[in-house]
Amino acid sequence: MSDPMDYASSGVDIDLEGSAVASLIGSLQRSTRKAGTPGAPVDLPGGFGGLIEFGDHLLAMATDGVGSKLQIATAVKNWDSVGIDCMAMNVNDLLCVGAEPIAFVDYIAVPKPDPEVHAAVGASLAKACELANVTLAGGETASLPGIVTELDLSGTALGFLDKDSAITGEQLKSGDVLIGLPSSGIHSNVFSLGRNIVTSMGLSYIDPCPFETAFTSRMLPLKPTLADVLLIPTRIYCTTVVGLLNHLKESQGSVHAVHGIAHITGGGLSNLLRLHDKLGWHIDRPMSIPPEFTWLQNQGNVTDLEMHRTFNMGLGMVLAVEKEQADSILEFVQQYEPAAAIIGYVNDNGRKVTHANPKILFEHY
Amino acid sequence: MSDPMDYASSGVDIDLEGSAVASLIGSLQRSTRKAGTPGAPVDLPGGFGGLIEFGDHLLAMATDGVGSKLQIATAVKNWDSVGIDCMAMNVNDLLCVGAEPIAFVDYIAVPKPDPEVHAAVGASLAKACELANVTLAGGETASLPGIVTELDLSGTALGFLDKDSAITGEQLKSGDVLIGLPSSGIHSNVFSLGRNIVTSMGLSYIDPCPFETAFTSRMLPLKPTLADVLLIPTRIYCTTVVGLLNHLKESQGSVHAVHGIAHITGGGLSNLLRLHDKLGWHIDRPMSIPPEFTWLQNQGNVTDLEMHRTFNMGLGMVLAVEKEQADSILEFVQQYEPAAAIIGYVNDNGRKVTHANPKILFEHY
Repeated sequence: MSDPMDYASSGVDIDLEGSAVASLIGSLQRSTRKAGTPGAPVDLPGGFGGLIEFGDHLLAMATDGVGSKLQIATAVKNWDSVGIDCMAMNVNDLLCVGAEPIAFVDYIAVPKPDPEVHAAVGASLAKACELANVTLAGGETASLPGIVTELDLSGTALGFLDKDSAITGEQLKSGDVLIGLPSSGIHSNVFSLGRNIVTSMGLSYIDPCPFETAFTSRMLPLKPTLADVLLIPTRIYCTTVVGLLNHLKESQGSVHAVHGIAHITGGGLSNLLRLHDKLGWHIDRPMSIPPEFTWLQNQGNVTDLEMHRTFNMGLGMVLAVEKEQADSILEFVQQYEPAAAIIGYVNDNGRKVTHANPKILFEHY
Repeated sequence: MSDPMDYASSGVDIDLEGSAVASLIGSLQRSTRKAGTPGAPVDLPGGFGGLIEFGDHLLAMATDGVGSKLQIATAVKNWDSVGIDCMAMNVNDLLCVGAEPIAFVDYIAVPKPDPEVHAAVGASLAKACELANVTLAGGETASLPGIVTELDLSGTALGFLDKDSAITGEQLKSGDVLIGLPSSGIHSNVFSLGRNIVTSMGLSYIDPCPFETAFTSRMLPLKPTLADVLLIPTRIYCTTVVGLLNHLKESQGSVHAVHGIAHITGGGLSNLLRLHDKLGWHIDRPMSIPPEFTWLQNQGNVTDLEMHRTFNMGLGMVLAVEKEQADSILEFVQQYEPAAAIIGYVNDNGRKVTHANPKILFEHY
């Protein structure tokens, strides 16, 4: 392949999506629920999770789906990971505002109910609830033969936090240290490009994986297929982040040493720009890149910039913390994520993301 | 048409769906969240909304989609009502446990983003938030060209209640009076049969409505099309039910005069059986039936039993209340729903729904 591939050519037009979402948001008025009453909206920059008032607490909701990764799961009839992906996309967003996820509901749309699929998705959701430490509070299975041609899976997570424990990004400042938590692989939501590359290579998902798959702390069969690698479930960071925030509350009386948290999903590193409207971000020691990214990049002739704008490239979540506490926070976090590492720092060179690789530069999300 | 039509022949197999859902539920284990901590699950019969602990309160979540009614909206490019349908399906479920809905998130899946569609859906959701008095706390728009062929819309509602104000059905007893709240028409979630009948008649949704559409308290154009009638938005009962529960709390110190609430959706009258495992329900004075049901029944040669097992037949919600307070509760409710009426009573003739029409009998949901 000689033509470089990008996300738009893979069938998803991020700009068109942005303008559609803008149309939708433009149609929404302010809430009828008054400040100081349960359900009143709370504004927070970044918008990873929606916050509402609830007495001395805030409640946070996040909703998201697995996206086109489902097509790979359906193609190889292996739904073991999709419930975990669905959970992760939502609870990892809640963590960004400092919320502890407590409950989850799933929405399954299928052309026709299939007990085998539902049992597998159910088992996967049960495992996900355990990993995220949340209650499955409900779910809906819709048969929509005229609307969906194969399984769609989405969900909504609910979390809570003390009113004074919101992670708002307001305390971010130049010099803050960035701690990266490793991703487990491609995660979810950005599969169109990956799928396009695989298809255009004439490969099948059940082919033996055409590259060396070894990478830190993930489980794979001895002779993995391409699907095995692409379907590695998204990492759920609840234990790590909730553990850290509770530890800080207990030891310091507040979570304020953590100034910002970003979930690195579709949009890649540019997600950092959601946390602040002036500060910049420099990644001088990027995480190790799992081999599937390098392989996809080479096969698809994708630029470094596009790769980092689309994929997580090994970095699943970023904690921006007070410089003086970075080492102790890193040490705490490494109990749960041994490969967590300091990857960079916040600067005041303008609102942009820069990188050890000078080709990687983002000025808007 | 001479062959009687039923829901299964219209492409949705309720029994298969039931066994798929059972597979899914069978895969789910108990929550890892311990009793007495935020997020711990609370068991409640009926299962209209999922309840979790939250200090002195309970939080309730409900998730549901608009279903195949969306196909009519998409066919006639009129999405003005679908956000209201989506909201109604969820908040009306929350009301059944005595929860006040406070927030909502939407999930939109499309083959390709279309600003026109999103603006219309957004406007409809904004209107719905106003009607239900909830905050739109987030949303997701997914482009899934390989999974959906046209718009799918679902959502999740969050509500809360005081710990001692749950409507559990435990207090239901023989002699309780059933107050019916009128539906606005077909509502949502049961469109497959209706669509099948329309299609098999060779009718188009934009044809002038082939029957007299006048019915209590609903707005229609002067010369409505079939789509105009089929797309009448689902009634949202928040003002009525939250108003009633707050009124009872203020005037009596508790909501206990209301023993059970059922949202009459797919499954029709058999939904009543979800509220109790022994008691029976007799409808001796059914609500007026909106003309579209009669027309669909005649065109499709559908039995009375099947109609009442599929559609709401004019009855959107049922409140089972203490006999002595039925008149005063009805009077309160009629401020918001003038056509609300006493429709029957609870009995102890076994767990079944009986009806003034002896052909209508349900013994399982």
